Amino acid sequence: MDDSNADAPLYERIANQVEQAMAGGALRAGDRLPSVRQLSQQHGVSVTTALQALRHLENRGLVQARPKSGYFVCPRLPALPEPQMDLRVDAASFVSMDQVLHEFLLTMEDPQAVPAFQALPARSLLPEAKLQAILASVNRRHPEYGTTFSIAGSAALRQQIARRAVSSGVQLRPEEIVITNGGMEALYLALKSVAAPGETILVESPTYFSLLQTIESLGMRALEIPSHPRAGISLEALDFATQTPGAVRACVLLPHFPNPGGSLMPVEHKRQLVQLCAERGIAVIESDIYGELYFGDQRPPVLKSFDEHNDVILCSSFTKTVAPGYRIGWIAPGRHFMKTQALKMRTSCASPMLQQEVLAQFMRDGGYDHHLRRLRAALKLQAHQMADAVARHFPMGCRLSIPQGGFMLWIELPRHVDSREVFALARLAHIGVAPGAAFSISRRFDHFIRLQYGDPWSARMEESMRKLGQIVAKLAEAPSRQRQAEHALQA
Amino acid sequence: MDDSNADAPLYERIANQVEQAMAGGALRAGDRLPSVRQLSQQHGVSVTTALQALRHLENRGLVQARPKSGYFVCPRLPALPEPQMDLRVDAASFVSMDQVLHEFLLTMEDPQAVPAFQALPARSLLPEAKLQAILASVNRRHPEYGTTFSIAGSAALRQQIARRAVSSGVQLRPEEIVITNGGMEALYLALKSVAAPGETILVESPTYFSLLQTIESLGMRALEIPSHPRAGISLEALDFATQTPGAVRACVLLPHFPNPGGSLMPVEHKRQLVQLCAERGIAVIESDIYGELYFGDQRPPVLKSFDEHNDVILCSSFTKTVAPGYRIGWIAPGRHFMKTQALKMRTSCASPMLQQEVLAQFMRDGGYDHHLRRLRAALKLQAHQMADAVARHFPMGCRLSIPQGGFMLWIELPRHVDSREVFALARLAHIGVAPGAAFSISRRFDHFIRLQYGDPWSARMEESMRKLGQIVAKLAEAPSRQRQAEHALQA
Repeated sequence: MDDSNADAPLYERIANQVEQAMAGGALRAGDRLPSVRQLSQQHGVSVTTALQALRHLENRGLVQARPKSGYFVCPRLPALPEPQMDLRVDAASFVSMDQVLHEFLLTMEDPQAVPAFQALPARSLLPEAKLQAILASVNRRHPEYGTTFSIAGSAALRQQIARRAVSSGVQLRPEEIVITNGGMEALYLALKSVAAPGETILVESPTYFSLLQTIESLGMRALEIPSHPRAGISLEALDFATQTPGAVRACVLLPHFPNPGGSLMPVEHKRQLVQLCAERGIAVIESDIYGELYFGDQRPPVLKSFDEHNDVILCSSFTKTVAPGYRIGWIAPGRHFMKTQALKMRTSCASPMLQQEVLAQFMRDGGYDHHLRRLRAALKLQAHQMADAVARHFPMGCRLSIPQGGFMLWIELPRHVDSREVFALARLAHIGVAPGAAFSISRRFDHFIRLQYGDPWSARMEESMRKLGQIVAKLAEAPSRQRQAEHALQA
Repeated sequence: MDDSNADAPLYERIANQVEQAMAGGALRAGDRLPSVRQLSQQHGVSVTTALQALRHLENRGLVQARPKSGYFVCPRLPALPEPQMDLRVDAASFVSMDQVLHEFLLTMEDPQAVPAFQALPARSLLPEAKLQAILASVNRRHPEYGTTFSIAGSAALRQQIARRAVSSGVQLRPEEIVITNGGMEALYLALKSVAAPGETILVESPTYFSLLQTIESLGMRALEIPSHPRAGISLEALDFATQTPGAVRACVLLPHFPNPGGSLMPVEHKRQLVQLCAERGIAVIESDIYGELYFGDQRPPVLKSFDEHNDVILCSSFTKTVAPGYRIGWIAPGRHFMKTQALKMRTSCASPMLQQEVLAQFMRDGGYDHHLRRLRAALKLQAHQMADAVARHFPMGCRLSIPQGGFMLWIELPRHVDSREVFALARLAHIGVAPGAAFSISRRFDHFIRLQYGDPWSARMEESMRKLGQIVAKLAEAPSRQRQAEHALQA
């Protein structure tokens, strides 16, 4: 205890000691503090004084109380700067699938990987037992779900989806919704409903590889528009890229916490974007699969809530929030409904009723909201824990922005580090790293990596982050193969 | 009883009376005969004599005994001639979806329709309770199926599929199989794996509209090759149509009981077809979704069993045979495996594990074979009952061939009858009729209709067939709108 502390009241001096432990790294974001009883014993003070010390720390925003579990160290924003934004817009081009990406997809299912490769919340954060119980009862009551199906999908589920949509600022009628096999099929149907092979689809950059691949498999062109780590797609760049009439047929956007960026589009941007696209006859396809996973105070409104002409196609799914195993998504195609429904019949015809009814019941009985509150709190904490670990373990010159929702961390490495090499080395150590190259047709993210923090923090996680930091540091020192090649050419 | 009978033994005279009742239509295919006791009472003869009479009829192949349920009238082949085969081959063209077809698709789910619109076995013929019980136990043991998924699909199911494949003459390894969301997705993936937009896909004609729609939605051309009601696709026409190298990229064939024709491709044709396509570099996509529903003595071998270069892509599903509600299908893409698997990840990513595991267990525990035996026997009987009803209720000039498997009846009406009108009128009476126009791009099947006999025979079914016969008769007398138009033009 240093002298500067001598005159301070007892509770404050104890608080200062705790604070020093936090500064020194002995106590980290998310760690539980000693209980009131432990603290009073450690310092030989009354329980009241110990409690005062904790309240003092809480008032200063350094720790937070959690009902029935005590006090925890608040997440500290890491010292790292934000990634830089490259505002150049490349020409639209056909996507070509990259070997590393293919390798990446094939290794996505490594069960030993920590963090995991697949961007999903940990099982422990999902309502597994509840879903299991509801499924058992639905199965008991509906043997016919094994032998019959409905092309339109479960009316009960579509009703719940319409009811929920209100909280995201949009009025939907159940008859306007088509149930799909997950969010991927929803996006696929949306693209086919509005665009033809050869036409140009505008996407934010970076964006997730599945979207680029879907555009590829439809023979369409992808035009990448730079996206800001916090505010999402650049409206200036979008405005610039869409000035030639007819040049762009549609755009696919994730206004909420997209993979990998984790940005949140400001409300004013949303309004402007929907208006701009309407004026220029560009179909807006909105994927809101992460929309419920916000870290702020309230559910952000979807783009479709600013849609005056029923132009915006809204897609979502339950894969990232409730039941990855169910493969249930949905699409509200607006005025493209007939076409989308017909396409669905040609692609996979129908989706199983069983899982649809289970989700409907889960949403109706209110377990859904409680679950989402828990999930959001856990993901927010894990986001800060992982960002914290990156700040502690990664070498100088790395950058990241704290995501505002979802469960993806997008990290910029020193420019000369080849994320393909990071991916390859991390893979051997069973660390799930997605190489930046997988999130753009351009090469501009080759020195980025994506991590997912869907899993609760653990010693193994800490260890993985330490190893990953070493891998990045090693590659940051050694000139990469690429640079060696450049040198060779220069020589 | 006429005199010719006088000298015959008593049991034989009784048998003859029964036969007369059958000939007169008082006893119809599938009807139950009086019990031994009833027969002995009716004719005042001993139980032994009555039993002798029934055995006599059985030996003459007129009735069949069913364990615990008595004797039933054997199906008689109807008096109707086969549909005529039109050997003309039209040029390849892009499919354009027809309004009636769209209407047809939207009314497919009329729950009151008898026979139903959807081509599926009746619930009572499917192992609903067994599936329900297995699903309950799988759900109990595997809560994680709600929250996790596997891109590769269930290893247990792929193993069972590979094991079963042997009976259809083909060796498959589980790792060669990709699980899909039903047979439609399997075909979709197969087409995308081998062909590009604008390329020509050869199909048999008539073929089912979903296939034509899938080809349409992929921007490919469909080339229809005439198919014989009994022997399937005409090899001569196929040979002729594929002589220009590169003109045809792939063919999609259902060698077993295709919808709507119900033909069975002879083994020799299969061998020739696979060889011809191999020589000409035409990818063969085989859909075997009805292959297990054969009425003959043994499982017909798939085209892939004659495939020496791993060229044939085999697709199937459990929708038509076990669990329409599960939406589970599979594809064995042969040497296109990598591409197909990657495409699956981009389309719907994965399929639910729960239903996959239930199917795997159902197949492993042998309930599957028993179920298929029952289903085949029932469908065979229902096929003859419906063909019989057509022969009794439809006007002169109608033609059909008895299907050799599956559950579709393809009926040729008098040439001037417009099946669109039949469809429209039948729909009002809740009779599920598919208009021939839905099974070809050409107009050559406009006077055909498809019925499905998946439902056990009933009074309501008999009534529907009677009404349908009247509808057809009425349209056969009155000149159709089309002909009126022709007259108007001539005048």
